[in-house]
Amino acid sequence: MQKSDLIYEGKCKKIFKVEGASDKVWMEFKDNLTAYNNKKKSSFTGKGRLNRDTSSLLFQYLSVSNHWVKDQGETGMITQSLSMIPLEVVVRNRLAGSTAKKFQKKDGTPLSSPLFELYYKDESLGDPFISSEQAVVLGWSSIEEIDQIKTMALLVNEEFSALCSKVNLELIDFKLEFGKTSKGELLLGDEISADSCRIWTTKGKRLDKDRFRLDLGNVKEGYQEIYEKLKSAI
Amino acid sequence: MQKSDLIYEGKCKKIFKVEGASDKVWMEFKDNLTAYNNKKKSSFTGKGRLNRDTSSLLFQYLSVSNHWVKDQGETGMITQSLSMIPLEVVVRNRLAGSTAKKFQKKDGTPLSSPLFELYYKDESLGDPFISSEQAVVLGWSSIEEIDQIKTMALLVNEEFSALCSKVNLELIDFKLEFGKTSKGELLLGDEISADSCRIWTTKGKRLDKDRFRLDLGNVKEGYQEIYEKLKSAI
Repeated sequence: MQKSDLIYEGKCKKIFKVEGASDKVWMEFKDNLTAYNNKKKSSFTGKGRLNRDTSSLLFQYLSVSNHWVKDQGETGMITQSLSMIPLEVVVRNRLAGSTAKKFQKKDGTPLSSPLFELYYKDESLGDPFISSEQAVVLGWSSIEEIDQIKTMALLVNEEFSALCSKVNLELIDFKLEFGKTSKGELLLGDEISADSCRIWTTKGKRLDKDRFRLDLGNVKEGYQEIYEKLKSAI
Repeated sequence: MQKSDLIYEGKCKKIFKVEGASDKVWMEFKDNLTAYNNKKKSSFTGKGRLNRDTSSLLFQYLSVSNHWVKDQGETGMITQSLSMIPLEVVVRNRLAGSTAKKFQKKDGTPLSSPLFELYYKDESLGDPFISSEQAVVLGWSSIEEIDQIKTMALLVNEEFSALCSKVNLELIDFKLEFGKTSKGELLLGDEISADSCRIWTTKGKRLDKDRFRLDLGNVKEGYQEIYEKLKSAI
């Protein structure tokens, strides 16, 4: 496959057209680390590759239909070309991060059942938390699409959580993004990596991007441990 | 009926026990005006009575089961005693106030269909916007109860909007609160007044608490006009 024009450059990924395959794109994972809506920035060598590898592992493992086609080079991935739905879909098994803060709960507060949340993907608005009703009435999705997304996200949670617990990890929460192919098929897109998940050891040690957000150190080692352990569980 | 002990004093209402009737309470509407989570305060003589009268009118007019039993004196209302659900239920026909601001939309932006919203009633948290899923997983309500509340709130919207349009008013949005009797019956509670609604003339003139929030003047006249017009429509 041959890379063609750059379609989009985000904080942590570049998306290119693929020569002669308009239904595919070429995603390149960058070494950048960003947090708090791009207010905190850093990077480490090998981060792009680790996120590509972790995402690739999970896209191949999970039963939910997703955009992965194949890996390409050290940090690339060929995926289905999707028209993205402007929602960040979050599933939480414990409260942490913004939702813990909103309700003045301790990071790690257990939940009686998984919590499904939506955020409107608009950086100028700060990616605000929204309800399904807002997503529908404001025209970003439909009731049927959100129902389907919710079913898919909760299935990812079941399978991903089970995988984590095989290697003494606990899946605290994660963020997904979805899109549609030109034929209208809804697929899980974007990435699933230490950037987009909170994963703790069963002893409560954080391995994910919170190491960077909270200045806990050994960021690369955490990303590496997540990848290696998940790989060993499959 | 005889007032007994004070059970609760809020920003704009006092709730008393009723002598010899444990399933009833006595609500007194105060003249206080507050906005922005109690950061802005004022009052005007006759406001308590206007809010009692407006609420009473609507509770008797609407077909949704509610807590109204009878009016009492100048500013009092006897209601069913309810165990309140800690949610503020908002229905919007146009975007205004906090939701307009959140999405950087102009006050008065039309919506394709009514928007149902929930806020968690906790002043120390700033009454945050929440989703149905958060209300359920965090234990403040159940899926069945929220479905029932949504149906009731949308029915209030239909009837209340139709009433407004008979007298050239437009119902922009409103806030409801619900509670349960000791027998478990879900009833519309609290009040429905110029304090808890946005009502504009069809020419776009604001008549409600936004006159106070936005320092537009003639607050009492706005409250009076809402009451008089709704009364004339019934």
